[in-house]
Amino acid sequence: MSATNTEVTCDVREVLDRIGDRWTLPVIVELFQGPRRFRQLERGVEGISQRMLTLTLRKMERDGLVERTVYPTVPAQVEYELTPTGRSLSEVLQALAGWAAEHREVVIASRARWREQHPDTRS
Amino acid sequence: MSATNTEVTCDVREVLDRIGDRWTLPVIVELFQGPRRFRQLERGVEGISQRMLTLTLRKMERDGLVERTVYPTVPAQVEYELTPTGRSLSEVLQALAGWAAEHREVVIASRARWREQHPDTRS
Repeated sequence: MSATNTEVTCDVREVLDRIGDRWTLPVIVELFQGPRRFRQLERGVEGISQRMLTLTLRKMERDGLVERTVYPTVPAQVEYELTPTGRSLSEVLQALAGWAAEHREVVIASRARWREQHPDTRS
Repeated sequence: MSATNTEVTCDVREVLDRIGDRWTLPVIVELFQGPRRFRQLERGVEGISQRMLTLTLRKMERDGLVERTVYPTVPAQVEYELTPTGRSLSEVLQALAGWAAEHREVVIASRARWREQHPDTRS
């Protein structure tokens, strides 16, 4: 690695702060499948309210992760889509999800072994 | 994607919870460079206390991310090393750090543009 430990750590933490809120992640995952209208997102992201979806999309638009297109129909149709930046972020996040899915068993087994070997610790 | 939105979201959140504490990330980055003794880690990870380094290493060992080897020298020498699981996690995290470093300018520029276009919002 050419970057220092502190640099790498800060870079990762920045992304975690950005996507660590309650709703950004599921909205990214939904939009990764293709452009969506507001109602479609509302249906696709389980449990999100209109207000939180509005705020989340606005933050993502502000950061350049999402593009909002208004079509001049009557009534106007609004579509949300990942930008190339948003798309590349979601690819990295898929890798993270893949790692978690792939290694869940190993981590669970390791914890069980640890508890056996350290019966008097609580963690 | 074959996994559902909720599955992918949960998988990513699990990893974020695991690495989101104050010290796991810099310890992973340090160990990515090779096996380290306790004192070396203490020096390499800026600002960490002995107690927090001990706790962090124990949690990583419990989860199967780190292996602890005791060499029968006098005095005994203890070395910490990433397991293959820990190593594969740090590769995914490097990708995340790479994304952040690569897209920082784009995100900053997008925010500046947003503020210009929305002078009356606070975000």
